[in-house]
Amino acid sequence: MVKIGIIGANGYTGFELMRLLANHDGVKVTYVASRSNAGVKVAELYPALSAYYGDVEYKDPNAKECAKACDVAFTCLPHAASAAFGAELISCGVKVIDLSADFRYDDIDLYEKTYGVVHPAKELNAEAVYGLTEINRVKVKSARIVGNPGCYTTSSILPLYPLIKENLISERGIIIDAKSGVTGAGRKADVAYSYCETDENFKAYAVTTHRHTTEIEEKLSVDGKKVALSFTPHLLPVKRGILSTVYADLQNGATGEKIAAAYQKYYGNETFVSVFPEGTLPELKWVVGSNTCKIGYKVDKRLNKVIIVSCVDNLIKGAAGQAVQNMNVMFGLDERKGLPLCANGL
Amino acid sequence: MVKIGIIGANGYTGFELMRLLANHDGVKVTYVASRSNAGVKVAELYPALSAYYGDVEYKDPNAKECAKACDVAFTCLPHAASAAFGAELISCGVKVIDLSADFRYDDIDLYEKTYGVVHPAKELNAEAVYGLTEINRVKVKSARIVGNPGCYTTSSILPLYPLIKENLISERGIIIDAKSGVTGAGRKADVAYSYCETDENFKAYAVTTHRHTTEIEEKLSVDGKKVALSFTPHLLPVKRGILSTVYADLQNGATGEKIAAAYQKYYGNETFVSVFPEGTLPELKWVVGSNTCKIGYKVDKRLNKVIIVSCVDNLIKGAAGQAVQNMNVMFGLDERKGLPLCANGL
Amino acid sequence: MVKIGIIGANGYTGFELMRLLANHDGVKVTYVASRSNAGVKVAELYPALSAYYGDVEYKDPNAKECAKACDVAFTCLPHAASAAFGAELISCGVKVIDLSADFRYDDIDLYEKTYGVVHPAKELNAEAVYGLTEINRVKVKSARIVGNPGCYTTSSILPLYPLIKENLISERGIIIDAKSGVTGAGRKADVAYSYCETDENFKAYAVTTHRHTTEIEEKLSVDGKKVALSFTPHLLPVKRGILSTVYADLQNGATGEKIAAAYQKYYGNETFVSVFPEGTLPELKWVVGSNTCKIGYKVDKRLNKVIIVSCVDNLIKGAAGQAVQNMNVMFGLDERKGLPLCANGL
Amino acid sequence: MVKIGIIGANGYTGFELMRLLANHDGVKVTYVASRSNAGVKVAELYPALSAYYGDVEYKDPNAKECAKACDVAFTCLPHAASAAFGAELISCGVKVIDLSADFRYDDIDLYEKTYGVVHPAKELNAEAVYGLTEINRVKVKSARIVGNPGCYTTSSILPLYPLIKENLISERGIIIDAKSGVTGAGRKADVAYSYCETDENFKAYAVTTHRHTTEIEEKLSVDGKKVALSFTPHLLPVKRGILSTVYADLQNGATGEKIAAAYQKYYGNETFVSVFPEGTLPELKWVVGSNTCKIGYKVDKRLNKVIIVSCVDNLIKGAAGQAVQNMNVMFGLDERKGLPLCANGL
Repeated sequence: MVKIGIIGANGYTGFELMRLLANHDGVKVTYVASRSNAGVKVAELYPALSAYYGDVEYKDPNAKECAKACDVAFTCLPHAASAAFGAELISCGVKVIDLSADFRYDDIDLYEKTYGVVHPAKELNAEAVYGLTEINRVKVKSARIVGNPGCYTTSSILPLYPLIKENLISERGIIIDAKSGVTGAGRKADVAYSYCETDENFKAYAVTTHRHTTEIEEKLSVDGKKVALSFTPHLLPVKRGILSTVYADLQNGATGEKIAAAYQKYYGNETFVSVFPEGTLPELKWVVGSNTCKIGYKVDKRLNKVIIVSCVDNLIKGAAGQAVQNMNVMFGLDERKGLPLCANGL
Repeated sequence: MVKIGIIGANGYTGFELMRLLANHDGVKVTYVASRSNAGVKVAELYPALSAYYGDVEYKDPNAKECAKACDVAFTCLPHAASAAFGAELISCGVKVIDLSADFRYDDIDLYEKTYGVVHPAKELNAEAVYGLTEINRVKVKSARIVGNPGCYTTSSILPLYPLIKENLISERGIIIDAKSGVTGAGRKADVAYSYCETDENFKAYAVTTHRHTTEIEEKLSVDGKKVALSFTPHLLPVKRGILSTVYADLQNGATGEKIAAAYQKYYGNETFVSVFPEGTLPELKWVVGSNTCKIGYKVDKRLNKVIIVSCVDNLIKGAAGQAVQNMNVMFGLDERKGLPLCANGL
Repeated sequence: MVKIGIIGANGYTGFELMRLLANHDGVKVTYVASRSNAGVKVAELYPALSAYYGDVEYKDPNAKECAKACDVAFTCLPHAASAAFGAELISCGVKVIDLSADFRYDDIDLYEKTYGVVHPAKELNAEAVYGLTEINRVKVKSARIVGNPGCYTTSSILPLYPLIKENLISERGIIIDAKSGVTGAGRKADVAYSYCETDENFKAYAVTTHRHTTEIEEKLSVDGKKVALSFTPHLLPVKRGILSTVYADLQNGATGEKIAAAYQKYYGNETFVSVFPEGTLPELKWVVGSNTCKIGYKVDKRLNKVIIVSCVDNLIKGAAGQAVQNMNVMFGLDERKGLPLCANGL
Repeated sequence: MVKIGIIGANGYTGFELMRLLANHDGVKVTYVASRSNAGVKVAELYPALSAYYGDVEYKDPNAKECAKACDVAFTCLPHAASAAFGAELISCGVKVIDLSADFRYDDIDLYEKTYGVVHPAKELNAEAVYGLTEINRVKVKSARIVGNPGCYTTSSILPLYPLIKENLISERGIIIDAKSGVTGAGRKADVAYSYCETDENFKAYAVTTHRHTTEIEEKLSVDGKKVALSFTPHLLPVKRGILSTVYADLQNGATGEKIAAAYQKYYGNETFVSVFPEGTLPELKWVVGSNTCKIGYKVDKRLNKVIIVSCVDNLIKGAAGQAVQNMNVMFGLDERKGLPLCANGL
């Protein structure tokens, strides 16, 4: 029975971790903390969890107390704060799965430039493993600290990685037009995310400036390639889910068959990544509620392009679910434990 | 050309007044004020209005300046503040249509008890007319000051008033189960009204304590009757609209035919109130976007009850539209000017 | 490992059974049938299930084949057809949990009058157990055939049953104003349930005529009481969930404390029914995604009424979840298996 | 008073025409026809229109009867059928604004290939004017027959036309990632557009094959350029509105300032097209309910691209509103008559 702490458990990612772990019979949530809600009952903030977390109270985050209670902690704090707290936990012997951006970058300068902060735990960053499980499973297994990928990045890297590795698409000219549900913005009191301003609305935001751009580019710049791409996020009037429409130029005589083969090579044995036959494109409802990433594509012969559609639930495969998946790998549990395979679907 | 001021024009009611009046060719909006947004352009807060109100700036509310620019002002301030500002305007010779609760009550004690404030303009309240146009049209015509009805109250009084006047239902035991869109809560930064907490959700609120209860009871306590009813509001995951389901006990041999006759008597010639044949019950989309109140009913012979369904757009017939309707009456304009008859419908 | 068949698995209830049972480690779904989709892959109709039911095909329903493959079958066919097929299954030795209305009524005349059909298996009906698990757990345990309750009825009976049994409310004058998500109408091609006609809309329907009225009245007419109540369903623009607002007249000196005691007596040890302290009223999002029924209430001393709010997920506790709960009881499994305790919550 | 006919008035475009024209004081709707609903009252199909079109019945479409009653007809029939009926109307002396695709193409082979039909009125097509009012106003003024543009095409051509004309972007490599509300699919009974399958969902469709692609390419292939672009439509869970995100490669030293100047040159005096300063990107709610097209852009210097966001209400500027705008021009009325400038906004 792995003992688990959740730090910053008041936000939607923390909520989702608690919800998923309630259905995981190999673990026990033994420590739940939130600075802003210390002393509050979880069920007061989230009545949806009341039947399972009825008596649990948020504690004020304290690394030593967490270490006494836990084998591993999920840290969901603001960037920089998360790395600092994570470093304390590591020094107390607790493994860390960090859901902020703090341990995602190889290039710490790029991180600091992107996030506008000084990284508080640079040496630790050097050993951190980027927790895109399907790509880095072996490293995750032995990691002390995992940087859990961002939601947009998961939905962007998974469909592009095999095609870049296999030289089927040009590393120049990639366009990612991504659309996310509102939980992506977090739990906040803000007129811009109020029901009346969001329902029946749709908008682009952070055009040319979204932070996930650099994370995506770094992780796709493999084998000496230097990927520079256009990433444009939009806000969908749905609660959950990211659908990314990706445009890339084919090269080296790439065809639908070769693309299928590349995906088969990388994901043929994966439980949580599915690639459909050419022309079958996933919809948001095929993944929301599950830990799956679903990928479809269509070749445009006229323009020699491929159009890829990739979907994840931003709170599950894009955050809490992938974190649990990494935890399962780190502790030698069945990788599927606690992770829904079927989407809500309707 | 009637010159119009809008005070407190930053909220949704103010927005809707601006939007409706942009299509009214007998008036000109000459003064738009908001304390919290003084100096801001209307189009910055509401880009939806940019093509019409491109250059207009919110002014800091000032009664004398308003009086110089306007024949009539719509006041949309918090209760008590609204009456105080309205009194200043009246003393400057500007007519006032107040959209707060301040001039709605005959019984000022009931107002003060309900809202927990001291009424700042009691003498003025004595001459104010309750602006439910279909009931009080003659008085509205000559009013200097109109207390514009609440949204829930409009949707509750219009269907019940004829049946109580004609003694077809008991004044005891009436239950109003009302459901409102989220604009009813106003424009605010509040997690409880955020998209993620409201979408796909539904809830009752202010059970047994909602302030509109006393306004409804006062206006229905006619001809010596003393109405005491149960009013329960709910929050619908839609932007606009109120649908009220009303349960009442029939008396005096009331039948579907007699109910139809009562409605015909009171609303047969009304443009903005429609009553459907027994068994045809209006839906929210039949009214949203229009200034209409639509009413349907069904007699339950087994239980000797009538079930009434009544719909309004809370921002139009329930607020801004009814205010414009009152303004048209006060200034001798065609009552329909600027007021949409057709709902958005889909 | 209990072997399970699902008959009529093309509808939303069938979908939900498949989705829930994918997470239940004490059972195996061995037979999935649908007349209209025989030969089609489950994952084609419901791509959300593809990662688990990838290769499964709908069979044409056949009782003998089902019997070979299964210990128990969930029947989700239209009324009358469901009982007929269920009778065949029983005669082949398969236990049946029927999700139609066919085995819900004690009074077969009332069933036939309500549904306008002749019951095809009257003798079987006599031994069927009404599967409101919290009320009939002992009988369910030894049942061969269970009539699984309706969604509206579950959300209506659970909050009212204890108060009627304890004589705290009058059996006359009860009003249930119920609001359901659109999945309640099933999976169908119908303009009335199209997105454009349903989104941002709200309506009452089947006023005074909804079939669940007689089911609710029969089950609440206990201890010689004869309940006749007003039941009015509405269509909410959400996918899932029922919130019922119930109005009842207090009697025998009933107070908030006595109501709390009655609920404690009946549900104090129940996992899936929660009753909140007076004044805390559940919201739809507190239950959607879970198998829980959440109940809150508020006494209106002025009118000597109690207003109760009760919530269920119509597809889970109101259908598939409760069916799985009954199956767990029938087969001696942990009653909670496969049933989510935490709601989606946001 | 221009007398107006609407043919095929049972669909959403017909609905919207009726709704808009109810607020237009220079016209009278004298003939409303629908084959599938002949004999039905408009208010029965669309209760939202009941207060204005209370007694109007759909007629069975007949060109001669229409000609007796009307000066101009809006034809909203399926492609090919629409041109055939339009030709009859023209021969009876009625002007025609056709809302199908039949009179939109210069290249009739491209039309026939795109729509898979033989054009039934080729000679008439030669004189038809493409009714993108801001581009073709002078020709519309004297037209007998106008081919009203498609919704996606309006939202695509308006932002791109000035930049192509002024040689600021390459005609190669343009990507249009478009997102439309569900009314774009029309009024239909289809599980794919049911509430339960559409709400909280999002998907791409018709990838590489959408018919509007050829219409957009033809209209943008000006001055000898040959535009071939990638157009990918998506289905948003909203009722109305299209937001198109457009990616283009800058050329000839194009900058934000030069782009602003190009837009100013083409739309500086337009009422219904607004272009915002660089970096201000319109949202769907800024246009829904109005006849406006709102355009914003951001230059990505790193990639030498421009990202443009363009919004229209698909039923208004994308269909019925633009048709009314063309009618106003054809009959010498104020171009703004009957056309809302302010969006619903929230």
